[in-house]
Amino acid sequence: MHLKIQCEYVGTKFAGFQTQKGQRTVQAELEKAISHYFATPVKVVGSGRTDAGVHAVGQIVSCLCPREDVKIYQFLLGVNSYLPSDISVTAAEILPKFNARSDAKAKTYIYKCYISPTRHPARDLDHWQLYKPVDVERLRAQAAVLVGQHDFTAFCAEVGDKSPIRTIYSLDIQTPQPDEIWFVIRGNGFLHNMVRIIVGTLIDGRAIAPVLNSRDRRQAGKTAPAKGLTLYNVEY
Amino acid sequence: MHLKIQCEYVGTKFAGFQTQKGQRTVQAELEKAISHYFATPVKVVGSGRTDAGVHAVGQIVSCLCPREDVKIYQFLLGVNSYLPSDISVTAAEILPKFNARSDAKAKTYIYKCYISPTRHPARDLDHWQLYKPVDVERLRAQAAVLVGQHDFTAFCAEVGDKSPIRTIYSLDIQTPQPDEIWFVIRGNGFLHNMVRIIVGTLIDGRAIAPVLNSRDRRQAGKTAPAKGLTLYNVEY
Repeated sequence: MHLKIQCEYVGTKFAGFQTQKGQRTVQAELEKAISHYFATPVKVVGSGRTDAGVHAVGQIVSCLCPREDVKIYQFLLGVNSYLPSDISVTAAEILPKFNARSDAKAKTYIYKCYISPTRHPARDLDHWQLYKPVDVERLRAQAAVLVGQHDFTAFCAEVGDKSPIRTIYSLDIQTPQPDEIWFVIRGNGFLHNMVRIIVGTLIDGRAIAPVLNSRDRRQAGKTAPAKGLTLYNVEY
Repeated sequence: MHLKIQCEYVGTKFAGFQTQKGQRTVQAELEKAISHYFATPVKVVGSGRTDAGVHAVGQIVSCLCPREDVKIYQFLLGVNSYLPSDISVTAAEILPKFNARSDAKAKTYIYKCYISPTRHPARDLDHWQLYKPVDVERLRAQAAVLVGQHDFTAFCAEVGDKSPIRTIYSLDIQTPQPDEIWFVIRGNGFLHNMVRIIVGTLIDGRAIAPVLNSRDRRQAGKTAPAKGLTLYNVEY
């Protein structure tokens, strides 16, 4: 049996999701707490890595379930009692077979910005501050160009061996308040820094089509700061 | 001339608004930064005190303006450069006469709760966690009893010499998400801990009328935690 575990974290004080020697990571904290709960070493697989400073409200991880008789409610309370205050498990499920990475069908990220010449401390934790107004209709028109299946090499920090082809199902620009802009992006998967480079390029005001077609990272805008990004949801 | 200054702060690391010897307070940080900007000692008056741990997005303070030729935009950037990251001034205005405390006509506070058996770190900063579902329609019916002019002695930590009569103009219970409950309360003024005791008593499920009529603090519920409370707006 496998455990499907939903977790939430404030990324500010983590060196990202993936275990790295000598660093405080989400994966290491989860493995420590789950291993402690089951009193046996447990390794978890995440739906994907999040970078240092990136938050999650709906990250999914999986592991082999070391016992058959797990009571979910007790598991949640138990594991949370071993986790620090900036991370928690919020739901869990026992499934015959489940891999958080390879079974993931779609992910949704939200990138939040606020527009103000002055800092807003209450939003500083999970927003990128923009100093000047943005043309939201232009943003929406340019964002629409990214929807669909494309080679996103221009929007990737380092392509490596993996295919740079991804599909963006939707990219909505929301304005929940007049001084807030949220990018809600849903796709079948994302390359390294892809969401942050997309947001940086859109805010830059660049025309997207030539950047996309160039397959050249240097044609895109800067990488938007990690703290504005939240992994919202993973679908299976 | 007087300065009307709007400020925002995350209350977590402050021992409240009012200056206290040897403590980190909002008032002391503001006075230090504004005095630094004008290169002369400046004392500020707040619209009211907020307790340790309480946040504000629309706190208003006033001071005598030490110079006639203040440029607001430069003042905002200058003062903010002297403020720590958990506080900022977000707007300012020069007025012939203005006192943030005595001129205040109405204040709006928002108290945020979320309902979940597990912690949600992303909301922990400014929400009170409730472990069990709440009957929102009952909350609304009981909240309505508080609207109007009443003696709020039962909802006050210590009445002292001041009149315990206050007027609540509105008390809306909002559910922006299914697992969120916000209390939005607007009144002409609030006694010490009044909003937090109102929220604690409503969540407790008590009938409000007998508590209000008793004028006895012991009849009300516990004081809801400071971190859920935000001073949203002050009207003049």
